[in-house]
Amino acid sequence: MPISQILPQLKSLFGDRMTTNAGVLESHGRDEGSLPSAAPDAVVFVHTTDEVSQVAKLCHGTGVPIVAFGAGTSLEGHIAAPQGGVCIDFTQMNKVICVHEADMDAVVQPGITRKTLNAHLRDTGLFFPVDPGADATIGGMCATRASGTSTVRYGSMKDNVLALEVVLADGRIVKTANRARKSAAGYDLTRLMIGSEGTLGLITAVTVKLHPIPETVTAAICPFPRVEDAVDCVITAIQTGIPMARMELLDALSMKAVNQYSQLNYAQAPTLFLEFEGSSVAVAEQVEMVQAIAAEHGGTDFQWATQSEDRARLWAARHNLYYAGLALRPGCRALTTDVCVPISNLAECIHRTHQAFEASALTGLILGHVGDGNFHTLILFDPDDAQERQEVERLGADIVAQALALDGTCTGEHGIGMGKTKYLTAELGEPAVDAMALIKAALDPTHILNPGKIIPTAPK
Amino acid sequence: MPISQILPQLKSLFGDRMTTNAGVLESHGRDEGSLPSAAPDAVVFVHTTDEVSQVAKLCHGTGVPIVAFGAGTSLEGHIAAPQGGVCIDFTQMNKVICVHEADMDAVVQPGITRKTLNAHLRDTGLFFPVDPGADATIGGMCATRASGTSTVRYGSMKDNVLALEVVLADGRIVKTANRARKSAAGYDLTRLMIGSEGTLGLITAVTVKLHPIPETVTAAICPFPRVEDAVDCVITAIQTGIPMARMELLDALSMKAVNQYSQLNYAQAPTLFLEFEGSSVAVAEQVEMVQAIAAEHGGTDFQWATQSEDRARLWAARHNLYYAGLALRPGCRALTTDVCVPISNLAECIHRTHQAFEASALTGLILGHVGDGNFHTLILFDPDDAQERQEVERLGADIVAQALALDGTCTGEHGIGMGKTKYLTAELGEPAVDAMALIKAALDPTHILNPGKIIPTAPK
Repeated sequence: MPISQILPQLKSLFGDRMTTNAGVLESHGRDEGSLPSAAPDAVVFVHTTDEVSQVAKLCHGTGVPIVAFGAGTSLEGHIAAPQGGVCIDFTQMNKVICVHEADMDAVVQPGITRKTLNAHLRDTGLFFPVDPGADATIGGMCATRASGTSTVRYGSMKDNVLALEVVLADGRIVKTANRARKSAAGYDLTRLMIGSEGTLGLITAVTVKLHPIPETVTAAICPFPRVEDAVDCVITAIQTGIPMARMELLDALSMKAVNQYSQLNYAQAPTLFLEFEGSSVAVAEQVEMVQAIAAEHGGTDFQWATQSEDRARLWAARHNLYYAGLALRPGCRALTTDVCVPISNLAECIHRTHQAFEASALTGLILGHVGDGNFHTLILFDPDDAQERQEVERLGADIVAQALALDGTCTGEHGIGMGKTKYLTAELGEPAVDAMALIKAALDPTHILNPGKIIPTAPK
Repeated sequence: MPISQILPQLKSLFGDRMTTNAGVLESHGRDEGSLPSAAPDAVVFVHTTDEVSQVAKLCHGTGVPIVAFGAGTSLEGHIAAPQGGVCIDFTQMNKVICVHEADMDAVVQPGITRKTLNAHLRDTGLFFPVDPGADATIGGMCATRASGTSTVRYGSMKDNVLALEVVLADGRIVKTANRARKSAAGYDLTRLMIGSEGTLGLITAVTVKLHPIPETVTAAICPFPRVEDAVDCVITAIQTGIPMARMELLDALSMKAVNQYSQLNYAQAPTLFLEFEGSSVAVAEQVEMVQAIAAEHGGTDFQWATQSEDRARLWAARHNLYYAGLALRPGCRALTTDVCVPISNLAECIHRTHQAFEASALTGLILGHVGDGNFHTLILFDPDDAQERQEVERLGADIVAQALALDGTCTGEHGIGMGKTKYLTAELGEPAVDAMALIKAALDPTHILNPGKIIPTAPK
């Protein structure tokens, strides 16, 4: 059904908070990835769960698609509206509802970003740890099962959410759990919704776990002769039980890009970015142990950043890598892909990826959340050159195929969206994808929630 | 359809591994809880995934119920067969398929018990941490989303399983994930199956996370003036970021029972059982910090157990509490209930529970995984006395009602089974329970998988 039939109702519900302005529509159909954008037909800026429920009821009755929108920082076309419909923008539904300091949790609206939440928490001595790089919204991070640099220590969104409030496709409001730290009461609707990318429900409140801000934090970088040496160092550190806070790997070309972009002069070698945290005694012990382990693998040239400004500079270099990579070739865009393998296969997977880059005319950089076996590539290409677009596609598919062959996943943290639906069956098999399609059909029988994402087809 | 119609096929598939012996049937319909037992019509002892798939296909086609059986240690009637049918006994499907030391994971068959798995792992320096007390099977622990004394440090089954192989109701075999440490590839079928109590699928392989055996482990007990003091000590320790390995609370009557049963002479006061682990430096620091925190809350009389035998004795006293409690009143049985609340509400919830016991003719003991806000009660009753049975029911319902009123759950770790289906809607509301029923109907349309558990009715 064309959206025009529900526009009057949307207008009367939202007034000025509903728009069909072309510029606004366009900006809501484009994420930070390299897939083509697709604008919705209307955008509503919601303030309450009840409003979300009313939009769902309208769309459920008429078959109009709904796409949820947070910060727009996803990478696999999650927020594109290929079938048009209503975009629900959650950015004005961004309050902290409640902080429970003794329980170390907070209830927030989905549109709050992680940095705003952490700023709000500063005086409590607590923080929310999941850090995907981008200043994404908490709701969006739930929807994509986000993780990032701190996941090796604190886990991903699936580990840091206690409960959700979710509006189903038909407008009913579901509480997935309460604030108890654990529960064995029925199916885990919380985890089912986390990572469902807006295809099973619309997240309207999130109860997140918080953690104590550590007493001491120290960071360091250390170059290694080869990627394998860096990875072996990480494996040994983890097996030794050292609770590292962050363990990031940048390959030699990434270090070159960082140096050029940020006017630094780090060694152009595979390099670990490490962070240690805890009590001062515990950090001192961790530092000593990791230095000894690194030395066994040829990593001896540690550069330390103990002061908070030095750490900020070090991590800024890491977090700016996307822009540093783009600057290697002015005017280019980058395909940011994302795979994750068992850590014992990580060096091999990176090695095969480097070989694929060497055999290609395109340039690729590798950076990884190495403690989790997760890495990204930035493959630089000219978006106006059809041959390069084809080559970058081929390389992306090749990297995924290598990861799957090494018992890995086609996405460690970016999600399936539209960009990776083609890999899901190769990864998990037809029965698993069909089980997902059955669940999708059960909870969203008219297929209005973010159509075309994860499960683009009906169950068999 | 009566099972008699598929018995010949089961016989030809399983030969001597299929039985209708009355004693075997009876023992497969009874768990360790206090609910009435209900025997299946036949038991098959499976060896392979393919056999499980064949049983499912037979039952799916004929509407015969299937109940999965592991160690039989569940407490809420999970393994009862109120509609008869086939019990699939997994205890002979109990191999370690593969241990990946570098990746710190293992792939196991579902019938292996946690103690057998840990004995197998001993030489690797790794262990599987989830400890529900009973020597349950890994498959059963997945099915009930088990947790226990070490969950405050290592999480529950949902946090310690990377992937499952599951046979669906129609016999199709699903791989829920691969061995990558994290994935954002589609719906989290792993977590959906964990805690589904055999109602959505039959678990035929489990990839578990392993952890390094800590260098140093030290345990202690410390009595406190009041339950509130012990809980406040725990809250402060957690907020301080001390990574405690175990934090258990026993109330004064539990300590009396422990003393009598194990010939000990601990103080008859609310007591914390604590365990510290890590490097020797880290443990020494944790011990010092926790002693200082405990002293602020009136806990000064620490008794330490550093040697492995002393620790074993200390934890045996805790783990034997069920029998110690029963011994307080020879011939009685115990209702073991299980609730979990936000930790800031824990002292209040325990206080209300103690008040309920004081107002009752029955005796109740309280013990808790206090770091998680989870506690159990043992309420002693005479199973042959109808009035006592009624009173124990009333008390159990009252404790759940208190927990729900304090933003908690009707079960932290024992699950819903048949015993707690009546509380699920009160806890999560009708839309949530209906969403569960929709998922159940989608994946098991003929309702053959463990009927009567979690979701006893069809969706609205």
